[in-house]
Amino acid sequence: MRKSIATVCVGGSLTEKLEAVARAGFDGVEIFENDLLGCPLPPERVRERADSLGLRIELYQPFRDFEAVAPDRLADNLRRAEHKFRMMERLGAGMMLVCSNVSPLAVDDDALAAEQLRLLAERAADHGIRLAYEPLAWGRHVDTYARAWRIVRMAGHPNLGICLDSFHILSRGSDPAGIEAIPGDKIFFVQLADAPLLAMDVLHWSRHYRCFPGQGGFDLAGLLAPVLRTGYAGPLSLEVFNDSLRQADTGRTAVDAMRSLIALEESVAQVLGTASPLPRPVRPDGFAFAELATRDHKRLGGLLGALGFARTGQHETKPVELWEQGRARILLSRVHPDSPTDTSLVAIGVESPDPALSAERARALLSPALSRHRAPGSARLDAVATPDGTELFFCDSGHPHWREDFDAVTPPEGHIGGIDHVALSHPWDRFDEAALFYRSVLGLRPYESVEAADPYGLLRSRAMSNADGTVRLTLTLARVGPQYPAEQHIALADADIVATARRLRALPENVLLPVPGNYYDDLRARFDLGEERHRELRELGLMYDRDEDGEFLHLCTVTVGRVFFEIVQRICGYRGFGTANTPVRLAAQHTPAPVSPAAPDVRG
Amino acid sequence: MRKSIATVCVGGSLTEKLEAVARAGFDGVEIFENDLLGCPLPPERVRERADSLGLRIELYQPFRDFEAVAPDRLADNLRRAEHKFRMMERLGAGMMLVCSNVSPLAVDDDALAAEQLRLLAERAADHGIRLAYEPLAWGRHVDTYARAWRIVRMAGHPNLGICLDSFHILSRGSDPAGIEAIPGDKIFFVQLADAPLLAMDVLHWSRHYRCFPGQGGFDLAGLLAPVLRTGYAGPLSLEVFNDSLRQADTGRTAVDAMRSLIALEESVAQVLGTASPLPRPVRPDGFAFAELATRDHKRLGGLLGALGFARTGQHETKPVELWEQGRARILLSRVHPDSPTDTSLVAIGVESPDPALSAERARALLSPALSRHRAPGSARLDAVATPDGTELFFCDSGHPHWREDFDAVTPPEGHIGGIDHVALSHPWDRFDEAALFYRSVLGLRPYESVEAADPYGLLRSRAMSNADGTVRLTLTLARVGPQYPAEQHIALADADIVATARRLRALPENVLLPVPGNYYDDLRARFDLGEERHRELRELGLMYDRDEDGEFLHLCTVTVGRVFFEIVQRICGYRGFGTANTPVRLAAQHTPAPVSPAAPDVRG
Repeated sequence: MRKSIATVCVGGSLTEKLEAVARAGFDGVEIFENDLLGCPLPPERVRERADSLGLRIELYQPFRDFEAVAPDRLADNLRRAEHKFRMMERLGAGMMLVCSNVSPLAVDDDALAAEQLRLLAERAADHGIRLAYEPLAWGRHVDTYARAWRIVRMAGHPNLGICLDSFHILSRGSDPAGIEAIPGDKIFFVQLADAPLLAMDVLHWSRHYRCFPGQGGFDLAGLLAPVLRTGYAGPLSLEVFNDSLRQADTGRTAVDAMRSLIALEESVAQVLGTASPLPRPVRPDGFAFAELATRDHKRLGGLLGALGFARTGQHETKPVELWEQGRARILLSRVHPDSPTDTSLVAIGVESPDPALSAERARALLSPALSRHRAPGSARLDAVATPDGTELFFCDSGHPHWREDFDAVTPPEGHIGGIDHVALSHPWDRFDEAALFYRSVLGLRPYESVEAADPYGLLRSRAMSNADGTVRLTLTLARVGPQYPAEQHIALADADIVATARRLRALPENVLLPVPGNYYDDLRARFDLGEERHRELRELGLMYDRDEDGEFLHLCTVTVGRVFFEIVQRICGYRGFGTANTPVRLAAQHTPAPVSPAAPDVRG
Repeated sequence: MRKSIATVCVGGSLTEKLEAVARAGFDGVEIFENDLLGCPLPPERVRERADSLGLRIELYQPFRDFEAVAPDRLADNLRRAEHKFRMMERLGAGMMLVCSNVSPLAVDDDALAAEQLRLLAERAADHGIRLAYEPLAWGRHVDTYARAWRIVRMAGHPNLGICLDSFHILSRGSDPAGIEAIPGDKIFFVQLADAPLLAMDVLHWSRHYRCFPGQGGFDLAGLLAPVLRTGYAGPLSLEVFNDSLRQADTGRTAVDAMRSLIALEESVAQVLGTASPLPRPVRPDGFAFAELATRDHKRLGGLLGALGFARTGQHETKPVELWEQGRARILLSRVHPDSPTDTSLVAIGVESPDPALSAERARALLSPALSRHRAPGSARLDAVATPDGTELFFCDSGHPHWREDFDAVTPPEGHIGGIDHVALSHPWDRFDEAALFYRSVLGLRPYESVEAADPYGLLRSRAMSNADGTVRLTLTLARVGPQYPAEQHIALADADIVATARRLRALPENVLLPVPGNYYDDLRARFDLGEERHRELRELGLMYDRDEDGEFLHLCTVTVGRVFFEIVQRICGYRGFGTANTPVRLAAQHTPAPVSPAAPDVRG
């Protein structure tokens, strides 16, 4: 199907927008009127520009407050329309979006609306223009596709059809099944947008919070399936109003947008049982490794050693160490001591039953492929760049052949057996992109986005997980400023966190984040844990949470550079991430460390 | 009255918060539980810290989901409460906030709620603690003060009273008049917050968008008057949840908060006819001048000259030039050529019938007084710093004595007769503060906040004006980045903008911002202006708007540094600011200037 995007979805001047969406592979665009009005090029030149980029101008929009008005107003509305038609002829746009009237002057009369739209369609036909009538969710009287379709049918003009917009339909909770009653050739246009499930006025929600399909909470495939069953053959066009996207990098947004349409095409193909545009999904089933780059591998190695890891290998050709404990594998790659980059998480490896196919799918979803310099004989690993720049490697499930490059010895067995989850930090303009990326590329399912109070601002995060919890990520929205603590971390799964905590507390150096005593005083109020258990948690500095399935114990190390480790134990299938304790953890990370002469400085 | 603030209103660690609110002059605080839990100090030490700062701990909050539950839950809820009471005793907090139950497990039974709250009050009394029961706007069953008061009365315990929160009352549109039916000694606590008038779910609105009194759209004085008529003698306490404030400078927010309470005290005194805490308002009645600091006064002087201004004087002792046309007065102060500061607006002078009183009032509203170096014999001008750092001078209405320092000659008379408005640019954390500042200090009334689409993001702005429109400001929310154009400007009132535009277009150098031709093509659709008028507007590059009162013509100059001039003509009492044209203006400001060999570079 043709893929289109409204110019309002991306930032920049009109010509920057056209160039970016053409580069991302779109076939056409909706020209948003304000983008044309602010453009120094006349419509004819915009048309040439679009032509030369291979972009079809699918739609000109929006035309507002036309139908169902008193006769004295109609003349002025037709006059307005004639000017738009002339502009469209110059632009080479063959279809105009007519939004349902929102004015208090609109009359609640479908026959009148149909009659006036028919008149408009006759005028449009003189210019070779077709009209797509869109019921806005906040239309004065016409606010559902069922009613809009009744009016279009009543008007009965070949140049008048309906425009279906997923936001307007799904935000009102309308059932998309009724769309199948509309003949496909009367559906003139389909606009797609997702949105987080928020309880607010639909107008405000629509104008600020729309996002690309797969980034919010709507079932877009469920909407599109009945549309396609009608035989609709027009473009799938994205129309997203979003405060962040307006400021984001134009080219990057265009790629994000295209990825969302490709992933949606796959979802709808699954619903309809038709051919998929993508290589089949390969579900990752574990973490192979996480890689930290650091200026000071000694300090980080010391911390890993304290946690029970051992250095099991050194890469044959690169300054990278392998540290292991059971199947928890951490790579430490050394950066030059003068590098401005402090310790940070730079790569994760996931295990896949078919790494080559995983990588092929990731590339088909427009992930930039990475080629690392590889010595002859080194293991070949496919890798792509993720939205925050972290490298994502695909490794063979259960067969870490790549360890051979490190000539690695057998790892020690301890309570820590693997990586539970990895927390990645995203700039404001990549947070939604990341959710779609991991959803489409790795098949992870997103949890709801949550907020935690940090002493210096809210921290927004969103967890994602595969079905059995063997690959879990938390995506956080990075704040910028020296007052914000690390937001990257690696959580390690521990089979006996009490024993680990006891051992770590007994060390001469302090490697654990201190938890405030007030937390434990309040924990008594939150949970009736019994005196002994409560005392143990307090003494060991363990944080506690509980959900309907089970219990969760966790603690954090001190931070090195941007990174800290979390040790977690899930008991009886707890599925969360201890987010109830996040505000306390964040406050503790802001608290200056107590001065202790015995404590070596392991902070970055 | 005692003034208090919830620790959740400001950013920082708990001790940073206590210090900042004490410095701003608050008498007490509400301790928000999460702030205590994340604090490394035990409650006893927090109490000492508050004592030493002269702060009373007025309230501990929140205690949730207690009342109207099944008997088996009651025991656990009482157990929870006992732990909180013990924490409060250590903290020295004598009152606990009990929010109405929001849980789906709460029973819709006022008698049961009253019975259980009475039980809780008995337990609290054993600890010398009082309970303030607060009906949340989203309470499961109890969501109005009328119902909460019925339950409190039914419970009939001296340690149980009601907490009134302005947000919960006004967001639901409840009439505050009924508050007078509650005995003053049963109103245990009053929490104050304002909010912009948004159509969204009350919970989301409350958690993210609250602001300080005078910054939003609620009638706080109208709420507080009936409260005070009951004889309520407790503190006025601010409780504001706001995403921006959490990240803003702690000390600055505390001062902003205190200013809002002082201004509110004045407003409520007016309603009640009691003594005001402030010097009486003095309404400014015009602009005396605007001052630009520039590295290159020649370039800026050239632009002013082209607009018909003349350099009428030079300051006796300082490198400041006076440029005038009629009563439009612009000061150009020279900064060193190597200064990093490009051309920017640094000061405005407003005319006041009593400048000394104006300044006294501004200082009473916590505006930082400024003392400029002044030569003997120079005119004395009172000045304060505004939220964005612009200096605000108070000058004698109609008597610009300060011109004598410039030994100024008679200004030329032209079409431009004065300053229409000044646009000031504010960082994200000072936008709401500025609205309150100009409202309370200058008595300007705010318009609703509006948004305009800029090619690289939304531009939010809010206009303010005195009653007769002689002092108008527009406050914009500054975006940070090289892609954003100037947002400071000085708008000059022109009695014949057509003549001015004609003269400026005839100049060899191009001093005007080009308006895209597409704007004029669309203007035909928007307004039926007649061919001749339309052609004139297009030829002269004039933008056009209309409201119910009159018409508006305007144009902009090119930008120098951060600043441009707008020339405006208001016809028949038009009251707006041409905001319908803002997206086109912003797009034009992003468009690179056409290369013209004849045009001298007047851009910064």
